[in-house]
Amino acid sequence: MYPFRAESVYVRNAWYVGCLAQEVSDTPFERVIMDKPVVFFRTASGKVAAMHGLCPHRYYPLALHGKVIGETLQCNYHGYTFDGHSGLCVRIPSAPKAPRNFHQRVYPVVERGPWVWIWPGDPALADESKLPTLEELHLDARFMASPLLKPVLVKARYMLGLENLMDLTHIGFLHAASVDFEEIVQAPLSISETDAQLRIVRKMRTSWGMVQDVLYKPENRFAGKSESDSETIVHTPGYVTNTSSTPREIEGVGPADPSVFGELWFHHVLTPATRHSTHYFGTQSRSHRREETAFGELLHHIDTEIRSQDIEAMEAIEQRIQQFGEPPVELMTKSDTAAGRLRRRLQRMIDLEVSSSTAAAGTEALNPAAKLAEPAVGPEEAAAQSA
Amino acid sequence: MYPFRAESVYVRNAWYVGCLAQEVSDTPFERVIMDKPVVFFRTASGKVAAMHGLCPHRYYPLALHGKVIGETLQCNYHGYTFDGHSGLCVRIPSAPKAPRNFHQRVYPVVERGPWVWIWPGDPALADESKLPTLEELHLDARFMASPLLKPVLVKARYMLGLENLMDLTHIGFLHAASVDFEEIVQAPLSISETDAQLRIVRKMRTSWGMVQDVLYKPENRFAGKSESDSETIVHTPGYVTNTSSTPREIEGVGPADPSVFGELWFHHVLTPATRHSTHYFGTQSRSHRREETAFGELLHHIDTEIRSQDIEAMEAIEQRIQQFGEPPVELMTKSDTAAGRLRRRLQRMIDLEVSSSTAAAGTEALNPAAKLAEPAVGPEEAAAQSA
Amino acid sequence: MYPFRAESVYVRNAWYVGCLAQEVSDTPFERVIMDKPVVFFRTASGKVAAMHGLCPHRYYPLALHGKVIGETLQCNYHGYTFDGHSGLCVRIPSAPKAPRNFHQRVYPVVERGPWVWIWPGDPALADESKLPTLEELHLDARFMASPLLKPVLVKARYMLGLENLMDLTHIGFLHAASVDFEEIVQAPLSISETDAQLRIVRKMRTSWGMVQDVLYKPENRFAGKSESDSETIVHTPGYVTNTSSTPREIEGVGPADPSVFGELWFHHVLTPATRHSTHYFGTQSRSHRREETAFGELLHHIDTEIRSQDIEAMEAIEQRIQQFGEPPVELMTKSDTAAGRLRRRLQRMIDLEVSSSTAAAGTEALNPAAKLAEPAVGPEEAAAQSA
Repeated sequence: MYPFRAESVYVRNAWYVGCLAQEVSDTPFERVIMDKPVVFFRTASGKVAAMHGLCPHRYYPLALHGKVIGETLQCNYHGYTFDGHSGLCVRIPSAPKAPRNFHQRVYPVVERGPWVWIWPGDPALADESKLPTLEELHLDARFMASPLLKPVLVKARYMLGLENLMDLTHIGFLHAASVDFEEIVQAPLSISETDAQLRIVRKMRTSWGMVQDVLYKPENRFAGKSESDSETIVHTPGYVTNTSSTPREIEGVGPADPSVFGELWFHHVLTPATRHSTHYFGTQSRSHRREETAFGELLHHIDTEIRSQDIEAMEAIEQRIQQFGEPPVELMTKSDTAAGRLRRRLQRMIDLEVSSSTAAAGTEALNPAAKLAEPAVGPEEAAAQSA
Repeated sequence: MYPFRAESVYVRNAWYVGCLAQEVSDTPFERVIMDKPVVFFRTASGKVAAMHGLCPHRYYPLALHGKVIGETLQCNYHGYTFDGHSGLCVRIPSAPKAPRNFHQRVYPVVERGPWVWIWPGDPALADESKLPTLEELHLDARFMASPLLKPVLVKARYMLGLENLMDLTHIGFLHAASVDFEEIVQAPLSISETDAQLRIVRKMRTSWGMVQDVLYKPENRFAGKSESDSETIVHTPGYVTNTSSTPREIEGVGPADPSVFGELWFHHVLTPATRHSTHYFGTQSRSHRREETAFGELLHHIDTEIRSQDIEAMEAIEQRIQQFGEPPVELMTKSDTAAGRLRRRLQRMIDLEVSSSTAAAGTEALNPAAKLAEPAVGPEEAAAQSA
Repeated sequence: MYPFRAESVYVRNAWYVGCLAQEVSDTPFERVIMDKPVVFFRTASGKVAAMHGLCPHRYYPLALHGKVIGETLQCNYHGYTFDGHSGLCVRIPSAPKAPRNFHQRVYPVVERGPWVWIWPGDPALADESKLPTLEELHLDARFMASPLLKPVLVKARYMLGLENLMDLTHIGFLHAASVDFEEIVQAPLSISETDAQLRIVRKMRTSWGMVQDVLYKPENRFAGKSESDSETIVHTPGYVTNTSSTPREIEGVGPADPSVFGELWFHHVLTPATRHSTHYFGTQSRSHRREETAFGELLHHIDTEIRSQDIEAMEAIEQRIQQFGEPPVELMTKSDTAAGRLRRRLQRMIDLEVSSSTAAAGTEALNPAAKLAEPAVGPEEAAAQSA
């Protein structure tokens, strides 16, 4: 499926943002992640739980009026109850006793920063050390985050969002921004990859403009050009940060004062819902003007506007792909280099999961019924009936 | 298709409620029954007619502005006219004479009680003696029916409704009713089957509670427990009645006075529209407080509320099945016994229809074109053109 | 696909109305024609351009905030720019130079009368001499056209509209018009075909009625019958005109005065959008009462009403075909003669396109990527990646 070679499109063995920490409470809610319904809730101890969202008894959505009781979640249909952390079925009201060893699938989750991270792949491979640190994400104490963007379910495959972020030449058109377009196009580009990250850096020479007025205040204007890095980092397959061009060295002045010319990072968080839809989370974090609440709100407002344009583009393209078929050929050019690198990077990760036996087992585990080794739980006629 | 073994899911050779008698007038209307459009109308003589809903000329829906003329229905597109009871094409305005022997498919229908019953299967097998009597349905003169529930098209396969009715342990959760839940769970269950019925009886010992206040009035309260039967009867594949636990024998008192502790029956009428949607009809009938109109309206109101919860459950599950696939395995328990019995009962009936040659002929007859033995009706170029 | 024998349903090598001339401006807009998105716009020189609607770079819809610059259209995503008439890619902002020879597909278009005509098939076969003249369409200086009907996207395959027009016996039912129905049915019918046209003429003898009051004014009433032709002309597969029965010869009076009893033509313009939807354009043109604006508006109003009934019929039938399958057999009669002729005529044209090598090449050309002989345009990693 476009833009990948085969039908597999997800890197499952990775950490994704499943929801905002502030979304999770003792009122469970359902979110579809990589084609699976997941119910999120916060247990009495304050921990976040993420569980396969359909009751194994009658397929009723556990989030629909489900009730958090202590560390467990009780289904609203017939009261089946599951431990939020192990998935163990701890009670079937109409059965004399709970089944001995039935586990509803639970997902590894970590609450870090403003996010709840989830591992949709093989739980045995879930490794918290692979989770980006707040330092890496520019969300640690050095930074102040703006109010979080309202999570949006975008009706487009996630790659349309990621590739949008890889090619910033769209800024001058889609966002009709008064940036110095030639600067972006002409800037020498370097791309580096590690197991953890894909990093794109454009060495830019930028003039002061309207954007700088907003970010650094008009009174800090300088006459010459400044040297800066336009940096985009893909931390995980679904988490991208990019930074505006913070002046580092000002022509005729010298090094820029970081307390005035701080860093500003945009957080683009894309979690696949289905093959044709994506949860879009986000915020901005800044190292200067940290106490200025109004500045944070302004950034929030501007970013919301900009992303609504990106979302319009993503959804327009997705709709066309669905109606008219996949692009038969793409007319790619220089500015698609980074997108091409990311596409190949993710393709390798997908191929690896598909081919490796580990991944195969992981896929198996995605079937919530796979653990039903001993399904019969009641005395009389009760039985696990295969459909 | 879930929950059946194969793709066949309908018991066609049975009587179903097609609509309310009060819905049928000389304004025809279309209702989809088992994937076929059926037009219902009342002819000049007052009889109900049910006919295949698409004109054999140009596939125009006969119900769309169609006109009842005497015992016939006239298509609004080019005026083709059919006898409501035999289906005979009696007029083609633009042809010199009506075709000699073209019959539009008509369905056997019977108006009985508040319902119009229809036989979707082989007309040759339609047997009015198989239609439940009003006595069997608890709708005869002994009972007063509440105002009928507004017919609803539920976006869920009919079995999700039927199996809901088989397992009353959902009452304490889905309906959050303050019933004595342990009573239901602990009650000895007996299930009996005949060709005509599936009957489930729970022998219960019930304490007076809020439900009894509503049904039997607070002044008739008694202190001890009462013995009662919680009875559920599947009369036809789409018609289920169940009764609340009418006290029969009161602890320390003796037999309950039936003029005070009357019977109350809930009528759950589920007619498949498509494989993923179901017409839901219903009412309640009672043998006591028969003249109390306000009591009937209260029952109507309460039942409407309760069914809206059942409908929410049915539709939530159907939606999940369609989005995420069929339940791979079901974790069944004691309280699923009755549902399991009903499922196997219907599976046997479906298998019988599919395998028997009788059923095969019946299936053939579902094709409205099958009777087109002599299709050419006009002089010149007219012809029955196969598409 | 109904009503054709095979899955091909379009006559591609023909002129169709793509849009109204008055719809096209320097704000591009997208219209789906025969399953392809087409962007229409008017360039600085005033000429209409029609281009494949998806940017070959990233599949972004060119109409979505696209910008007309001179004779070119600039994509709103990354600024790729194409000549409106040749389709040549003239600029890629982020590439050092435009690609040498990449052409976006453009469609032959002709602005004639109130319409923009488009040739969806093989451009090499587009022949302006096959385009009906304004004289042939009854839209030349002899006629005054009413205000154009608002273009409507009808959710029905185009043949349901065309066949509706072939059988006027629907007028007495669908439009409940007080026409003398027997006149239509009894009128001798003649059908003639040329390469250019299918023409159906009914020789009618008509009494004065309400319709004549409206068209010719009550003061011109005459007592006897008049002879007239009810004429329907299929000019192209998507353009049908028909005329009301203009009196030619009045019983006991002699030839009718053409300045009083003028011709009135209805224009039914059906352009396939998808296999299940159709653009419906239209107007009326008259040779009498030409200066009476209010009369034109009255015709516009009446015709809008009538077509809304035709559209309701088309959509009702399409919906039933999609839900219940194609008509297994059709009970055709005398009045279907013309529809049968048109169906066979179009079937022959479709067959010819499918079988001939010319048509095969035409089909090939429908793939916008087919011309991508030299797709690589940038230096570094740029490449035409096949999906």
